[in-house]
Amino acid sequence: MGRVYNFSAGPAVLPEDVLKEAAAEMLDYNGTGISVMEMSHRSRAFETIIHEAEADLRELMNIPDNYKVLFLQGGAHLQFSAIPQNLMKHGVADYIITGQWAKKAFKEAGKYGKAVAVASSEDKTFSYIPDCSDLPIDDDADYVYICENNTIYGTKYKTLPNTKGKTLVADVSSCFLSEPMDVTKYGLIYGGAQKNIGPAGVVIVIIREDLVTEDVLPGTPTMCEYKTHVDNESLYNTPPAYGIYICGKVFKWLKKQGGLEAMKAHNEKKAKILYDYLDESRLFRGTVVKADRSLMNVPFVTGDKELDALFIKEATAAGFVELKGHRSVGGMRASIYNAMPMEGVQKLVDFMKKFEEAHQP
Amino acid sequence: MGRVYNFSAGPAVLPEDVLKEAAAEMLDYNGTGISVMEMSHRSRAFETIIHEAEADLRELMNIPDNYKVLFLQGGAHLQFSAIPQNLMKHGVADYIITGQWAKKAFKEAGKYGKAVAVASSEDKTFSYIPDCSDLPIDDDADYVYICENNTIYGTKYKTLPNTKGKTLVADVSSCFLSEPMDVTKYGLIYGGAQKNIGPAGVVIVIIREDLVTEDVLPGTPTMCEYKTHVDNESLYNTPPAYGIYICGKVFKWLKKQGGLEAMKAHNEKKAKILYDYLDESRLFRGTVVKADRSLMNVPFVTGDKELDALFIKEATAAGFVELKGHRSVGGMRASIYNAMPMEGVQKLVDFMKKFEEAHQP
Repeated sequence: MGRVYNFSAGPAVLPEDVLKEAAAEMLDYNGTGISVMEMSHRSRAFETIIHEAEADLRELMNIPDNYKVLFLQGGAHLQFSAIPQNLMKHGVADYIITGQWAKKAFKEAGKYGKAVAVASSEDKTFSYIPDCSDLPIDDDADYVYICENNTIYGTKYKTLPNTKGKTLVADVSSCFLSEPMDVTKYGLIYGGAQKNIGPAGVVIVIIREDLVTEDVLPGTPTMCEYKTHVDNESLYNTPPAYGIYICGKVFKWLKKQGGLEAMKAHNEKKAKILYDYLDESRLFRGTVVKADRSLMNVPFVTGDKELDALFIKEATAAGFVELKGHRSVGGMRASIYNAMPMEGVQKLVDFMKKFEEAHQP
Repeated sequence: MGRVYNFSAGPAVLPEDVLKEAAAEMLDYNGTGISVMEMSHRSRAFETIIHEAEADLRELMNIPDNYKVLFLQGGAHLQFSAIPQNLMKHGVADYIITGQWAKKAFKEAGKYGKAVAVASSEDKTFSYIPDCSDLPIDDDADYVYICENNTIYGTKYKTLPNTKGKTLVADVSSCFLSEPMDVTKYGLIYGGAQKNIGPAGVVIVIIREDLVTEDVLPGTPTMCEYKTHVDNESLYNTPPAYGIYICGKVFKWLKKQGGLEAMKAHNEKKAKILYDYLDESRLFRGTVVKADRSLMNVPFVTGDKELDALFIKEATAAGFVELKGHRSVGGMRASIYNAMPMEGVQKLVDFMKKFEEAHQP
């Protein structure tokens, strides 16, 4: 059917230019006579790939020198363990529960010490971000944990929590590189690549160097110690090399788009097309408190499950795929990451308008 | 320069047909209109990919129904922790040290209980496999651990150790699918994909189902519990989807080659070309005890470091790449995995003969 508009929450749409380059280089990367998939991670060619990827990411996010950048495996889920294993020096951490991923991270942390849920929006199906201006942060909390953009529920922090001086740790999987962020406000930032950056199987960790110590909890796997990877510049063992190569290409694509300020403007304009329509529609409505709306994940419903199902079916047939909402919210969700073109969202809205006309409530 | 002969120890050469298919499908997999890199791991298309991969692997290796097959992340290194975390019920495990990877696994196990080195070939730079017919296996050992093919040193077990009834655990990273193996002799078989199966970032675990329990060591990350992945058929979290897709293609390629019996015959014939020459050469010699030679990794030296360096330089220029030996052995190493064609080895030997003529000792 040719390329479709892919609204998957992750793994998700990648820039077509990146895929074309990857296809062209599949049998012979840059005159090496081999694929990047076949390339020793100790080779000069791969070293250049990973070093350029790091340098481009540092430039895009304006990452200060006292932060380390790591390309790791195991997804966000392995970080749910690694974070307390590395950072829980006093055995206490505060978690703000804004969705399933924050909750899973919180539960995992409970294996390693006292994890405290200092705020939650579970009372209203995580449809908002709690007020985090004056939370009961524990005096001996080693860190305060947030999931900055909630993929399933479509919320995003517009203001970072007041951590009262404690280290902020953020899972940014679904808003990574969607807009500029002030790295200095965080102790540790991490995210899976498979939403806004590259293929599944790469997780990027940005960690302030004073948090990288040998003093980890007993029994911490060597692979979960940040120091292991910092000391070896992400080459302690064979890294997910092909994934890192694709991430690197996406970083270069982002630079070509004008960097994160330009992406932010683009993403705001793109999301506005959909949100404006949801606000005026008499059939569809967004499920999230307006002030907390994500630029990346837009859940919406008709209020009628059968109509939702019909919409998804017809949309899929028309080339708008993966619009089904997460089972915990129902309805629809359009994930409109960096690589989703403006025209994809415009055409989706046009399609929704036609559907609305045909199914006047 | 066009495709070269890639003797990398890993990541390593992949079948050209697989790479060509992957390139052709990069923008549109099987009429879905998206790349496998962009595909939700919960989609029907990806489910088909991972289920077919598992079914083909089961067929190739003749894996009995009471063994589970897992596609995981974190490489062999994360398994170094996961194995004791899951299997050390009595706090004791016996390790046979035949190289750096076995040694690393042994050291990591020491974090979790009493790891005992019951045999070692370190006295002769791991150039042989110790006699394992009557080892001092601990009465309360939870398992006996081996690295079945030693990538760096070029040795392979031709007979499995007598574990005296204890569970055998084997790292088969560098001999995976190179010849048939009797899965029923093992409790757990695992290996990184990046040598004989696919790109880096996928590790395959084959585990007998009675070894999959909730009873793991305290503090074991959820991602390191085999039960997590067994219960969710490798889809607990986002798997390294693109890597699994490539592995699946390699499995189909292997079936087309006639399966593992055919690969064994092919690999024996291929390795013989190189070993026969090494045995007759007056310049080059193999570094490993003949009886323990690997079919996959062939280390050799001239005995003169400068001549070794010159050989590597000239070979590289002639299109035989990644022949440099591991720093702990020196000299050269030709890794001749499944995807290395017969003619690659034949041409390498021809090149070595010319080099020998020019540099008569």
